[in-house]
Amino acid sequence: MDRKIDLNCDMGESFGPYRLGNDELLLPYITSANIACGYHAGDPLVMERTVRLAVQHNVALGAHPGLPDLAGFGRRPMQLSPEEIENIVLYQIGALAAFARAAGRALTHVKPHGALYNMACTDIESARAIARGVARAGEELILVGLAGSALPEAAQEAGLRSAREGFADRAYQADGSLRSRRLPGAVIEDPAAAAAQALQIVRDGAVTTFAGGTRALEVDTLCIHGDNPAALAIVQAIRRRLAEAGIEVVAL
Amino acid sequence: MDRKIDLNCDMGESFGPYRLGNDELLLPYITSANIACGYHAGDPLVMERTVRLAVQHNVALGAHPGLPDLAGFGRRPMQLSPEEIENIVLYQIGALAAFARAAGRALTHVKPHGALYNMACTDIESARAIARGVARAGEELILVGLAGSALPEAAQEAGLRSAREGFADRAYQADGSLRSRRLPGAVIEDPAAAAAQALQIVRDGAVTTFAGGTRALEVDTLCIHGDNPAALAIVQAIRRRLAEAGIEVVAL
Amino acid sequence: MDRKIDLNCDMGESFGPYRLGNDELLLPYITSANIACGYHAGDPLVMERTVRLAVQHNVALGAHPGLPDLAGFGRRPMQLSPEEIENIVLYQIGALAAFARAAGRALTHVKPHGALYNMACTDIESARAIARGVARAGEELILVGLAGSALPEAAQEAGLRSAREGFADRAYQADGSLRSRRLPGAVIEDPAAAAAQALQIVRDGAVTTFAGGTRALEVDTLCIHGDNPAALAIVQAIRRRLAEAGIEVVAL
Amino acid sequence: MDRKIDLNCDMGESFGPYRLGNDELLLPYITSANIACGYHAGDPLVMERTVRLAVQHNVALGAHPGLPDLAGFGRRPMQLSPEEIENIVLYQIGALAAFARAAGRALTHVKPHGALYNMACTDIESARAIARGVARAGEELILVGLAGSALPEAAQEAGLRSAREGFADRAYQADGSLRSRRLPGAVIEDPAAAAAQALQIVRDGAVTTFAGGTRALEVDTLCIHGDNPAALAIVQAIRRRLAEAGIEVVAL
Repeated sequence: MDRKIDLNCDMGESFGPYRLGNDELLLPYITSANIACGYHAGDPLVMERTVRLAVQHNVALGAHPGLPDLAGFGRRPMQLSPEEIENIVLYQIGALAAFARAAGRALTHVKPHGALYNMACTDIESARAIARGVARAGEELILVGLAGSALPEAAQEAGLRSAREGFADRAYQADGSLRSRRLPGAVIEDPAAAAAQALQIVRDGAVTTFAGGTRALEVDTLCIHGDNPAALAIVQAIRRRLAEAGIEVVAL
Repeated sequence: MDRKIDLNCDMGESFGPYRLGNDELLLPYITSANIACGYHAGDPLVMERTVRLAVQHNVALGAHPGLPDLAGFGRRPMQLSPEEIENIVLYQIGALAAFARAAGRALTHVKPHGALYNMACTDIESARAIARGVARAGEELILVGLAGSALPEAAQEAGLRSAREGFADRAYQADGSLRSRRLPGAVIEDPAAAAAQALQIVRDGAVTTFAGGTRALEVDTLCIHGDNPAALAIVQAIRRRLAEAGIEVVAL
Repeated sequence: MDRKIDLNCDMGESFGPYRLGNDELLLPYITSANIACGYHAGDPLVMERTVRLAVQHNVALGAHPGLPDLAGFGRRPMQLSPEEIENIVLYQIGALAAFARAAGRALTHVKPHGALYNMACTDIESARAIARGVARAGEELILVGLAGSALPEAAQEAGLRSAREGFADRAYQADGSLRSRRLPGAVIEDPAAAAAQALQIVRDGAVTTFAGGTRALEVDTLCIHGDNPAALAIVQAIRRRLAEAGIEVVAL
Repeated sequence: MDRKIDLNCDMGESFGPYRLGNDELLLPYITSANIACGYHAGDPLVMERTVRLAVQHNVALGAHPGLPDLAGFGRRPMQLSPEEIENIVLYQIGALAAFARAAGRALTHVKPHGALYNMACTDIESARAIARGVARAGEELILVGLAGSALPEAAQEAGLRSAREGFADRAYQADGSLRSRRLPGAVIEDPAAAAAQALQIVRDGAVTTFAGGTRALEVDTLCIHGDNPAALAIVQAIRRRLAEAGIEVVAL
């Protein structure tokens, strides 16, 4: 396992009159921002502002495409055809890329959102459709997906670099999947515990599962959930533990 | 006046299950396609298909951004702030540009749609906001607007090339504006009459107004309305008359 | 089996500038209109016009609620919670009911659209959520669902009258379900064949399945697909065959 | 002037994952809730919850229809035809009325939102279109509009009862219109000052204008702005001052 890691966070999920997330608080602590593109959240004004903020903090810009479901925040599974998936991904990346270029930057990565991310974990056809959409948007883009899932696999098939994602604040099952949010203990809210899990994943390439076993887990990036009430404390604790261990936090 | 002209047409205005326009019929006769970007019409599948068709016919690709009003087809004036206008224009150009690049092409031009186009004719602040959005999307993009209106002026201020648009199938007022569609005689449906007006504009740099006078009118591109029931006959008649007069039809 | 039958058709599926279906052609031949409510199709102007037309033809008014997915025409399955289903159904019925009341009528029935209809065939929880939404909108409303499926069952549980729906122009599987549209032979386009199937269902309470067997099938209403290219010829043939057999065509 | 007054507040303006307003805090102090209907804000789940809360607090239920502009929160003027205005109003009232009826209540009133409200103040054609939509939804509905504006006038023409609205926390111009929010001093944030203005309006039938003069102002209902940061302190102060003066706070 490398002695460096990327910390990513979903951002720009406000919409119109509505505010969501804590982008300004978290930006000083992360290295990659996944920015909503107007389908599940975000709008052109929010995208403009979020790109500008991320650039100010020298954070890498990524697209965070979602399902076309504003009311459901892209969290409700929808059965789209592979062709639909591919093209909504391409559309959203293109829209965000324009804001990045206007700010003098290029997008570095793409991370699907919510139900689209989850579909891409288990359904290889959906994962391939996403990868095709990303590859058409730019061969240089890094596709971020759950470590060990179908998405990194589809990225490789498509000739894309992929980044394997892990979670400091989510409990893992014995099979390497995430414990469902509907079950108790799915979310780790204690900053010290989250930081310990982050360190274990990055330094040891392993994670202690919910059942108590240890499972190998190699990741390139850790997700910070902006909607975790303890998000700020968690990311600060993670940065502290990683720094103590001599691990560099750096964009993909 | 140059002995060459561009013929442009709005395209890709279908949406989901709904079909609109006659893109495939008209593409063989035009040189520039203004492609809807999902705000007033169009969706990612329609955009993908329209870009592909336009490339097959070797027609120049342009973005056709509109107001965020699907039910009103972008034809209902909305009072947006300059910042909102600038960023919805940038968003839409970016989204379409991704489909163009994926097809191995670059966008050549941008033409605002419907109420956004009309606002940009008379309101210099709106025109400037559009021009800023276009310039941020790409300094090389040509901004298409009504000849003699605020839009070409704003384009120049922003350092953009502009293309002055004229109409073969719309009657002109004495002041150079278009006769309102609510008035009789606003739309010319007779192909011969439309072709005669096209020739007059391109060859003579002038147009006979509705009241019967003659007015100077220099244009770089002529708009073909795909929703005119006689669109095909009109564009064929125009091509014939222009060819007879030795005028070359070529993209901007 | 009764010697009378209702003929229903989905209507009002135009949207904004887009036209869909053949409402005016078909209204003289049907007895119940299922009118889109703005989620998968339709808008307030279309709803107003469709209600007015249906009233002119003395056709019973029903709500045709769908999933919130305009681009997908409500045909893409979405995983909504029962609470979400219940309340989107209630919302849409309420909206349409206002147009009916304004025209001096009351809604008689509700028929879910597309993916919502299909979910309600096999998933009893979704069917119950729909039935709760309908019951809250009005205890007198008749809930239309596929004969033999979960929806009529859920309607009964909720104390609602239900109408069992059959299809003249769709092939049936041996288990009573409809043959998937993805398979050849799913749609019957020959008017005579569709009329024969209609007569068999209504007079004999049975249908010849795709595989060639005969299956009992009791229905209260037959669906006429407005998007079948042969829709007009089919409904005319059905009316003729039913009339010859002395079967009355009358609303639920 | 009557010794009683209604206090109304806009409610249910959350949407999907987004929370807005302080409905639960304010409901104990008001007598009429204007509930968003899904066009400028609100969704079926939010409407269901808001109706239920309002019923628990025995607050009168009203519809708060807006322009179809979620991203702009219905605050951006849009030029709709009278027919469009009439039917989007009817649609939204119908949708909300279904939730009210399901909760065993009827709607008492309708108050347009944002840009629709403002258009109805000065443009009599828009005001009449709203009044027609309300009248078609129910002759018994009370139409709430700015005292002295075109909306109460249009309501009377349409045979509807109207309620004239005043503002405790907004400065008035000499002509009786509200001071624009873009100008300093437009919003009164001091609870004592707002309560004093409320008392003056209700008890004296007059208001001290921004310029310092006094202007007659007869109102039936006072608006409490839920988005005023001091909303709770203001409504509490108003209730205290009105109670001390022996003025009854009661729904329309």
